[in-house]
Amino acid sequence: MYHFSTFINCSFEEAIDRVTDTLREEGMGVLTTIDVQAAFKKKLDVDYHRYTILGACHPLIAYHMLQADDKAGVLYPCNVVIQEHKDGRVEVSAVDPLMMFLMIHDPKAKEVAIDASQKMQSVIERLQVQP
Amino acid sequence: MYHFSTFINCSFEEAIDRVTDTLREEGMGVLTTIDVQAAFKKKLDVDYHRYTILGACHPLIAYHMLQADDKAGVLYPCNVVIQEHKDGRVEVSAVDPLMMFLMIHDPKAKEVAIDASQKMQSVIERLQVQP
Repeated sequence: MYHFSTFINCSFEEAIDRVTDTLREEGMGVLTTIDVQAAFKKKLDVDYHRYTILGACHPLIAYHMLQADDKAGVLYPCNVVIQEHKDGRVEVSAVDPLMMFLMIHDPKAKEVAIDASQKMQSVIERLQVQP
Repeated sequence: MYHFSTFINCSFEEAIDRVTDTLREEGMGVLTTIDVQAAFKKKLDVDYHRYTILGACHPLIAYHMLQADDKAGVLYPCNVVIQEHKDGRVEVSAVDPLMMFLMIHDPKAKEVAIDASQKMQSVIERLQVQP
């Protein structure tokens, strides 16, 4: 599996706020936001469900990864998807950085990726236990 | 290898413009821009070389991939890194979408990923032949 996912019991907008806050608690800032629903409407004129991609970055982890391999930036940032399914349920999915960075065959990169993976898993776990 | 890379014979700023134009020729728009040098200076107070990540997206390919797996957005967009090495040479690296999306074990996803991979490879080849 290349992602950690969970359903959360709140609105789509609230989910974006909660994810942003929870990322911050794990030392990650949101660098990019992509509104996929709006992009598909504009570019393809198709109706897609609400789907936002937040690009998260832990600066020190990112720095260490680039020290190991200066091409690693093609795999940045680590994304968290928030989507509202047609039945109204809101799901959050975070990429597993370990799966992404395993493509970099470097022992130091692997160590950094394990650290990043644990942080992302922790984000999803925190979201699960919130009321 | 998880990326396609080439050195190009122009300035860093010109490289960003050339990459943006070449992506457009392959049907891809730039959704996100991350100035890694500025981010590291601000967050870590370290001096890194010029390093920009462009997040590219081919809307129809992205749509087909999400039809195959609605979690695939954690792997979006497809990045192109432009970096200026300390010796002044400018290098462009595009992620190989095939390596990324191979994590999705779905025959339709694989087909879409091969298409995306060919487009990215073509971007790098076009940059190589430009004067």
